[in-house]
Order: sequence, then C-alpha cells, then structure tokens
Amino acid sequence: MSKTVTLAEIAKWVGGVVRGDASTRISGVAGVAEAGPDQLTWLAHDKYASQLRTSKAGAVLVPEQFGETPMPAVLCQNPAVAMVTILARFSPPVPRPAVGTHPTAVVASSAQIGSNVAIGPHVIIGENARVGDGCVLHASVFIGEGSVLGRDCELWPGVVVRERCTLGERVVVHPNAVIGADGFGYQFIDGRHVKIPQIGTVQIEDDVEIGANSCIDRAKCGATVIGRGTKIDNLVQVAHNVQIGPDCMIVAQTGIAGSARLGRLVVVGGQVGIRDHVTLHDGVQAAACSAISKDVPAGTTVMGMPAVEHEVFIRERAKIRRLPKMAEQLADLIKRVERLESSADHP
Amino acid sequence: MSKTVTLAEIAKWVGGVVRGDASTRISGVAGVAEAGPDQLTWLAHDKYASQLRTSKAGAVLVPEQFGETPMPAVLCQNPAVAMVTILARFSPPVPRPAVGTHPTAVVASSAQIGSNVAIGPHVIIGENARVGDGCVLHASVFIGEGSVLGRDCELWPGVVVRERCTLGERVVVHPNAVIGADGFGYQFIDGRHVKIPQIGTVQIEDDVEIGANSCIDRAKCGATVIGRGTKIDNLVQVAHNVQIGPDCMIVAQTGIAGSARLGRLVVVGGQVGIRDHVTLHDGVQAAACSAISKDVPAGTTVMGMPAVEHEVFIRERAKIRRLPKMAEQLADLIKRVERLESSADHP
Amino acid sequence: MSKTVTLAEIAKWVGGVVRGDASTRISGVAGVAEAGPDQLTWLAHDKYASQLRTSKAGAVLVPEQFGETPMPAVLCQNPAVAMVTILARFSPPVPRPAVGTHPTAVVASSAQIGSNVAIGPHVIIGENARVGDGCVLHASVFIGEGSVLGRDCELWPGVVVRERCTLGERVVVHPNAVIGADGFGYQFIDGRHVKIPQIGTVQIEDDVEIGANSCIDRAKCGATVIGRGTKIDNLVQVAHNVQIGPDCMIVAQTGIAGSARLGRLVVVGGQVGIRDHVTLHDGVQAAACSAISKDVPAGTTVMGMPAVEHEVFIRERAKIRRLPKMAEQLADLIKRVERLESSADHP
Repeated sequence: MSKTVTLAEIAKWVGGVVRGDASTRISGVAGVAEAGPDQLTWLAHDKYASQLRTSKAGAVLVPEQFGETPMPAVLCQNPAVAMVTILARFSPPVPRPAVGTHPTAVVASSAQIGSNVAIGPHVIIGENARVGDGCVLHASVFIGEGSVLGRDCELWPGVVVRERCTLGERVVVHPNAVIGADGFGYQFIDGRHVKIPQIGTVQIEDDVEIGANSCIDRAKCGATVIGRGTKIDNLVQVAHNVQIGPDCMIVAQTGIAGSARLGRLVVVGGQVGIRDHVTLHDGVQAAACSAISKDVPAGTTVMGMPAVEHEVFIRERAKIRRLPKMAEQLADLIKRVERLESSADHP
Repeated sequence: MSKTVTLAEIAKWVGGVVRGDASTRISGVAGVAEAGPDQLTWLAHDKYASQLRTSKAGAVLVPEQFGETPMPAVLCQNPAVAMVTILARFSPPVPRPAVGTHPTAVVASSAQIGSNVAIGPHVIIGENARVGDGCVLHASVFIGEGSVLGRDCELWPGVVVRERCTLGERVVVHPNAVIGADGFGYQFIDGRHVKIPQIGTVQIEDDVEIGANSCIDRAKCGATVIGRGTKIDNLVQVAHNVQIGPDCMIVAQTGIAGSARLGRLVVVGGQVGIRDHVTLHDGVQAAACSAISKDVPAGTTVMGMPAVEHEVFIRERAKIRRLPKMAEQLADLIKRVERLESSADHP
Repeated sequence: MSKTVTLAEIAKWVGGVVRGDASTRISGVAGVAEAGPDQLTWLAHDKYASQLRTSKAGAVLVPEQFGETPMPAVLCQNPAVAMVTILARFSPPVPRPAVGTHPTAVVASSAQIGSNVAIGPHVIIGENARVGDGCVLHASVFIGEGSVLGRDCELWPGVVVRERCTLGERVVVHPNAVIGADGFGYQFIDGRHVKIPQIGTVQIEDDVEIGANSCIDRAKCGATVIGRGTKIDNLVQVAHNVQIGPDCMIVAQTGIAGSARLGRLVVVGGQVGIRDHVTLHDGVQAAACSAISKDVPAGTTVMGMPAVEHEVFIRERAKIRRLPKMAEQLADLIKRVERLESSADHP
C-alpha cells in the first residue's frame, strides 16, 4: 500500500471532480477519525460535516452538493458507491494458493478439475466432484463426493462441503463454514429419538456469499436452496429444506428453521430467529433480535419477540414505558371513585 | 437413485397396504409440492388432503383412515415412522473414507485403533487415544491425547476432540464441531482476568449426535456430560460442567451456561439461553428464543424473555396487545370522573 | 493425577492454614457434590455450609472465618483465588505438539519462525508471516500471509488467521475460531448487492483469549481491535471495525455489529446483540440475552430487548406481571363510574 495516487486520479476512477489541490497525493483510505494526511476519508451527508473540523485526513470524498471542507475534496454523485471502487483500488493483493494442485492435497482421480483452479495445501476433493474453471480452494477445504462447484468460486480455509451439494458461479464461502451437514430431524419411536435420514442436498446459486462458521444443512429430501446473489453473514444457521430467494441479506447469528421460506430481497438483521415452515415474503425487513413465528406479508418491517409490525412494536413499547404512570393514574382513580361512591351513598 | 421399486414393495417395507395400482414404480421421495410422477410423497393428516389435488406425485403415503387420493396410496399406521424406513431405503450411499488409515493421516504410535476403523486423509490422532471398532473419522478430524471413542462413532470433517474426552458408542459429530475446549472461567485478581485452569473433561454417552460448529466445553473439574441419546443441533454452546440428561433435544444456536442441568427428555427450541446453575427438570419444553434464568419444574413449557410458563406468557402478551385500548379507557375514565367530581361539588 | 499431596502442602501453596488432620492426602479437586475422600472441594461462603453435611470430600477449602466443617479444612483469605493455584497444581499436563515443525506442516520459506516454536501436523503458514518465540500452533492451524503472532501464543486445532492480522503476546485462540474473515459489507447498486472490499485487518492485543468457533472479522479499512486482556467466549461474532477495550469479558454467542465500541472492563453476558456504531462505555454490564441499540453510559447495567437500565427493566417487568390485575381493576372502575353517572343523571 506504499503506492500513492493524486486526487485527480481518484476523481477519474469514480467520475468525480476535485475541489482544491488536485495534485494532493493519497496512499490509502480511512475513517474520518483515523485518517492521516496521506489518506482519503469520506462522508455521506452534509450533517456529518462538523466531523471534518478535527479530521487529519488529506482529502475527503463527498456528495456533489456538499459545502466547503477544510481539506481538498473529491465530489461525486454517490460516495458510498464510489468507495466500492476506491477500496478495490487500494486493496492489497489477496493472497491465494497458486494455480495447480498443492502436493499435500488429496484429489480423487475421478474428480473433474477445471482450468486455472488453485488447490491449496491439505485440500480434499472426493470422488466424482467437479470444480469449475478459476475456482480457488484455500487450505484444508473439503469437497465431498459428487459435489459440484461452478466457475470462479472461492472457498476459504477449513470450509466443508459434504457430498452431492451444488454451488453456482462466483460463490464465496468463508472459513470453517459447513455446507450439507445433516438436517436436524428425528422421529420419536418407542421412547427414543430415531434419526430421519437426510437424503437431500444443498443448492447454492450464483454470486452467493456465506460467512465464517455458518451452517447450511442438507434437505431431508429435495434441496435446501440459497438464491442467486444472497449474502449470508457469520455463524448463521440455515436448517434443512429452507428456501431462500435471490438478493437477500442475512446478518450474523440468525437462525432459520426447517422449511422456512424467504422471498426476494428479504433483509434479516442479526440474531433473528425464524420459525420452521414460516414464509417471509418479498422485501420483508426483520430487525435484529426478532423472533418470527408467523408468515410476514411482502414489504413489511417486523421486530420484537414475538415479532410484530414495526409500528405496533413501537406503540407497545411506548405503552409499556408508560405503565408505571398508568398504574398511578389507576390507583388515583380508584380512590376518587370510592370517594364519589361514598358521597353518593351519603349525600 | 435410478433404481425403482413398486408400491407393493414399499408397502412391504413399512407393513402397509396399497390402494390403487400396486405396480406403480417409484424412484424416490419428495415433498407434496415438489414430487414428480416417479416419486412418493407423504401426508400425516387428512386436513392436508387438499394439497394432493395439485400434487404431481406418483403415489402418496398416508395414515390408514385417510380418504380417497388422486394417486395410488400406501396406507400405514404412522406415515412419520414409515418415512424413516423409506428414506433410509432411498438414501444414496453415504461416502466414507475406506477402512484403514489414509497415508496422510498422523496417528500416534501409542494410539489404539479398533478393527474396521476408517481414518480419512489428514486425520490426527494423539498419544494413547483409543478409537473403537467400526469408527469412521472423516478428513481432518483431530482426536487429542488420551481421548476415547466407543465403537461405531462417526466424526465428520474438521471435528476437534481435545485431550482426555470420552465418547460412547454410535456418537455422531458433525463438521467443525469442537469438543473439550477450555471452559470460560476467569478470576479477577489485581485488576486482571486470570484464567482458571479447566482441568476437567467431556463425557458423551451412547447415541448422542452433535451438530456442525457446536461447542461442548470441558469442565473446570469433573466432566461436562451429554446423556445417552441426546441430540444437539448446529452452533449450540454447552459450557463447562453442564449436565444434560438422556434423550434431550437441543435445537440450533441455543446456549447453556456453566453448571446448568437438564433432566431427561428435555426439549429446548432454537436460540434459547439457559443461565448458569439453573436446572430444567425432566420433560421441560422451552420455546425457541426463550431466556431461562430460573429452575423449571418437570413437565413445564416455558417461553419468553425472561421465560415464564407458556400460559402466563400468552396471557401477558394478550394484555400487552390490549394496552393501547386500556390507555384509552383510562383517559376516558379520568375525564368522566372529573366530570362527576365537578358535578358533585356543584350539584 | 495419581500423585497425592498432603493438606499441609496445599495450605503452603495458597498461604492458608489447616484445621484438622494436616497429613490428609489429596489427589485431586471436585465440586462439593462429586468430591470423594481423596479429593479437595471448596466453598466460598458460610451460607453453603450445609452442603458439606452430605459431601464425601476428603477436605474443604474455605474462607478464614468459616465455621466448623465435618472434614479437615484449609482456611485461606480467598478460596476463589486460591483455587486458581490449586487447579493449576492438579492439572494434568496439557498435550502440545513437540517444539519444531511437524513434517506434514507447510511453512512458507519467507515465514519467520521464532525459537521454541511448536508447529503441529498439517499446520499452514503463509509467506512473510511471523511467529514469535514459544508459540504453539496445534494441528491444522492456518496462518495467512504476512500475519504476525507475538511470543507465547497458543492456537488450537483448526484455527484460521487470515492474512495481515496481528496477534500480541500470550494470545490464546480455541479450536476452529476464525480471525480476519471479510467483514459483511455490501452496497446496493443497480438492484444487486455489490461487495465492499474489506481491505483492513484485525489487531489482537496481549493476553486476549478467543473461544472456539468465534469470528473476528477484518475491518473495511483500518483494524478491528480486541484490547489487552479481553476474554471472548465461544461462538461470538465480532464484526468489522469493532473496537473492544482492555479487560472486557464477552460471553458465548454474543454478536457485536460493525463499528461498535466497548470501553474498558465491559462485561457482556451470553447471546447479547449490540447494534452497529453503538458505544458501551467503561464498566458497562449487559445481562445475557439483551439487545442493545443505543449508547450505554459508563458503569451502567442494562438488560432486556430493547435493553434498558436494570432498574427500569425490573420495574417494567413487575408492571407487566400486574397487567391482568390492572385490567380487572379498570373493568371494575368502568362499571362503577357508569353506575355513578347513571345515578347522577337520575338522582
């Protein structure tokens, strides 16, 4: 990260314009409080402008109508979007195993490995597995028998993909995540929990990302499905036969119970629990820590335990906060009514 | 899964009878909405009968008194129980490492390995460990020094069993689960958290199953115990010195704090928190997302945060939902009492 | 653990005195209910004294002013502190890989390995990584390119430390924990979630301990920081750019969202959720299962969902429990006011 670029160059990357010294040299990016004189910071709104007064940043990326700034600025249409480009430009190269198969990897002879595939140390690939062109399998990844990876997938160290699972193209799986473990299904017979064979599989569509230590269980029969473009954070549990639509966001430590369904563009905050067989329709937003036990109609925002519509939650919370006051008013009323009653009896 | 069987054969597997064409050929099993003409589906109750109208399933498994169905049916006493048999029959073979020790495995010379043991690639077995007959250790499993596995255990890739732990017979541990990590214990001394040595162990009884990425911590002293036949889902935390009785079910992402006790046949939903030193007596059921901070008597169902008896929770929720109405009534009453008071003053 | 010591010796270890037979021989430590005649147990307070009546322990460790006990006793200033010493003395040796590099490990030639480092089987160390003197890397640990470990760190099997992360001295990381996975950041552009490059890193200070299957994500830019002496339990999620101060305790399954800050000596119970960008100031205590969505002032104890001050939570809970009673009183009042009104109309 020792290369430096001028503000003029940065403006060119993002289709923006420089206000101030366009020859200012920048070597990296940092938050407004941490940035130093050779770093670029960014602000999304005028309302944060005061934070710039104490910032030591060498330059700032701001929206087009942003007011004066104490340091040179790059003005652009949407700083959040521009930052995706700028961070990529300043990203140090991500280390990956070399293309080819590391000598310590154990690859079944019947496995089909595409071109330009990087197979790191101690990777294991089972019989009849297929790994698409350009895939990167970091150290100690396990690909079970007959599983299929589309092109350009990246699996980080310790990922386990059990047998007969399917990953689309450009799927990213973070360290120690587990795909295709048995669903949690038992039948109580003669006083014992007897395992229900979990003979289904997992199907992960293109452009999905799955976080570290997350679990996507295989279906009882059929497939657990993660839709195209859906992003799943760390330590998330997706149970057997769950169906998640495209472009959803599922934040860390959320648990989705068996056969639940999520539509398109559903956003689920962290630590949410979703009951089995429940459906969250398109565009639902679930606040962090919600416990969802019923179907949620499209476009609704829910929160709480049990989860209710956002407005209902806010109203109930307000009333609960007023309870001490209400209890006081009630006690007072009881006394006043008693007084009225006794004067009515003895007028 | 290309073999097909007749309905007559399926009926024989489960002690049922065929209604309709017993020569119908079936190649697999699927849910009522997904099943195709060569697949069997199943229904547990008459009340779901309408789902069959649009089903393309080739046949359906139903209880004995079930009404007419649009496709041939297998009638049996208990479809849920019968499905355990049928799924097992249609299960593709589960791939396992070959019996013997893979050349990349590292097995201490003092370890005792039983007969018919399959030790996969990159497995590590420590000094004086004992692995019972018929065990299957998938790739990259770690068995620490002196740990003991009974016969017919199956440990999936990436499982870590630290030193001096004991697993009974037929114990199944799913990928990347961790058994025997240090309990979380510190003593605050002179302004620092000083680690309390966790010198105990973990004891897992026969027929236990432990989910992917779950953690069973070793005891401070003595043993953390998981009772015979208990089933634990993914991402569950079992802290040091927890004692879980036989035949419990613990759903995903539940956390059980230090020295808590569960009796027999306790069922704990997903994302439940159980406080340290609390006891859940035999047959307790805890709804998903509950936070349990007190002992729960045998046979009780609890829910909520803090968890209370099911009926209390339902009643409180109903009252909370009525709070806006109550607030209105109260405001109205205040006005009416004021009016009564003022007319009493000036009759 | 077959060596035995006399009570006299144990008293010497902890600066205590023996009451009763100082030659009693002890071979280990156990809880008051489990301890046998050759084991020492301990009690922190007089109020638990009755538990000794049924205990079979050979001796008991108690505070100095403790009353008579049915078995010989070691009296000391603080049994909880003394137990740290005693447990360490009775601890069986913890098995570790031998100093040196196991032949199955894959260590980049540019990596710098200190003296007395133990590198276990199947460990992988990337280019330019640095491993300090005395570090222990158990089996299958992954250290990414350019990452740095201070002296005397211990990483248990399956730990993944991605590239460019820094661990201080004496850092302990439990099995299958993941340090430096990408933060969960996406920008919604043209109907798709586009990944925001996570080009920052993770910085873990001295004496930190991180639990099994926990995740510490790398920063978007800058570093996610875990302060000196902080202890993190199992299955904890620490998101990108979180800043945790020194000497905090974070119990299992807690999730800390992006850019949240914890001060010094913050204690967070299990399964707590902390919202992004929120600050918990020095000495905050958060009860288990809390959901914290706002800054919490120094020294405050919070609980509930949403989390509120402890006293507020207790008061609200009490009022909620009284709601059925309040509803009754309200219904009764309505009737009485109606009666008063009707008699006022028709006196």
